[in-house]
Amino acid sequence: MVKTLINGIETDSLSSSDRGLQYGDGLFETIALRSGAVEYWEAHYQRLSEGCQKLAIKAPSEALLLSEIGLLRRSVRLGASEYDFTQNGVIKIIITRGVGERGYFAANSCEPTRILSLAPAPVYPSDYEKRGVKLKICRTRLSSNSTLAGIKHLNRLEQVLARAEWGSLEESGIAEGIMLDNNDYIIEGVMSNLIFTRHSEQQQSEILTPDLSNSGVSGVMRQQIIDRLKKEGKTVTVRPIHIDELITMDAMLCCNSIIKSWRVQEVDGVKKF
Amino acid sequence: MVKTLINGIETDSLSSSDRGLQYGDGLFETIALRSGAVEYWEAHYQRLSEGCQKLAIKAPSEALLLSEIGLLRRSVRLGASEYDFTQNGVIKIIITRGVGERGYFAANSCEPTRILSLAPAPVYPSDYEKRGVKLKICRTRLSSNSTLAGIKHLNRLEQVLARAEWGSLEESGIAEGIMLDNNDYIIEGVMSNLIFTRHSEQQQSEILTPDLSNSGVSGVMRQQIIDRLKKEGKTVTVRPIHIDELITMDAMLCCNSIIKSWRVQEVDGVKKF
Repeated sequence: MVKTLINGIETDSLSSSDRGLQYGDGLFETIALRSGAVEYWEAHYQRLSEGCQKLAIKAPSEALLLSEIGLLRRSVRLGASEYDFTQNGVIKIIITRGVGERGYFAANSCEPTRILSLAPAPVYPSDYEKRGVKLKICRTRLSSNSTLAGIKHLNRLEQVLARAEWGSLEESGIAEGIMLDNNDYIIEGVMSNLIFTRHSEQQQSEILTPDLSNSGVSGVMRQQIIDRLKKEGKTVTVRPIHIDELITMDAMLCCNSIIKSWRVQEVDGVKKF
Repeated sequence: MVKTLINGIETDSLSSSDRGLQYGDGLFETIALRSGAVEYWEAHYQRLSEGCQKLAIKAPSEALLLSEIGLLRRSVRLGASEYDFTQNGVIKIIITRGVGERGYFAANSCEPTRILSLAPAPVYPSDYEKRGVKLKICRTRLSSNSTLAGIKHLNRLEQVLARAEWGSLEESGIAEGIMLDNNDYIIEGVMSNLIFTRHSEQQQSEILTPDLSNSGVSGVMRQQIIDRLKKEGKTVTVRPIHIDELITMDAMLCCNSIIKSWRVQEVDGVKKF
């Protein structure tokens, strides 16, 4: 029950010559539609624009994307769907460099492809917010590339391999995986960012989140949480966090735009909070 | 004038829910059709199978792929094309994990997608084999991931960014770029592998090619050249090669299945051979 618009036309049919498929040459955003609002739209659009700039892809205008999101929501409401997409759902926007000739070289004439889709919001167990979730530490590492770090590009095989390390949520009880870089630093979750709290006798509790200069996605929800904590007068320290520091932490949460934030109850075999 | 078969059907229309687009979750092979022969088929199929195994994607059978290549060549010959695809062309095979639900987790029920295409063989300047080519050293680095190293997966943004560092062949005179890893070791060309020769007064000339354990694609043509040299009684040493060693080399070539091999005449601003 996913609805898709490609370059403004209601279809899910893409040319196999699109560089998004051929090379992962593009970017995406995953945005919550909640109680009728496109949540944190400005932050999502900003990251998408910055990503397009880094990859030298012409970013579609904000107005065009918003009008197409509106079109998707309307077209779904008018259909025979049982799900009310006017209120809740997951919006995914993929922007690729467009259809290209054979080879890595992209002609300037390449016209970016916009793929917008709207899917039902996922349903997670009701005790996740209260009881917290169980995480595992993934064997698959995140590689380092300062140009690609931060942006939400389409090269996601490392996440695919990491997520394949445990079964479905129902079978395994594992809600998310922690990913490290090749030097054993904690970068992020497979689909989320991570925030830690460490108590201190001498001073105020420390709030920490991994530095993402060389790996990882700079999450919209992560930034929202950092901004909110700052408004409350708290300091969030962004710095490299080694896996050996995990046992010294007193609280941990994973966050993204769709799940918002989950308290971590346990890191499998390593730590209980 | 590219002809495409997706899962055996003559179309270039792919579902935008395919994980090949969503995450680059797949592999490819680029194979020369030369004088009517599918060149080095066994080596290409072997690398594709090994890649599928590493990514836990069910590999299509050799017989199925060969029958579909035959179908493509026939369908092109019967069409109104001016190009004789029965003799020469470039065959590209993309295998993705298939169409999936939202999220990184892939259900076991995922059925792989096969995308086979046939395009005209590229035409390169006639003096490339004789006079050699000019290369540049790319700023974009190859990241390290031992699981993904060697296989020809669809996460190719690093190659796209590296290739964008210089203009078209005609404008720039640059035929290929050298890519380094984050520790300044030479890994490969953007679209080729690299082989070096270094003369020695004491002993036989050394033939060297970079170690690809952590980055790079293990090229079919590279292996053909290594095997041929071994048959001639020469030793090819596979080891990490630092960029500082480049000036000590006496000859260099870049190779892939389509270009075969080009002698390097010059590395821009660094070395003339």
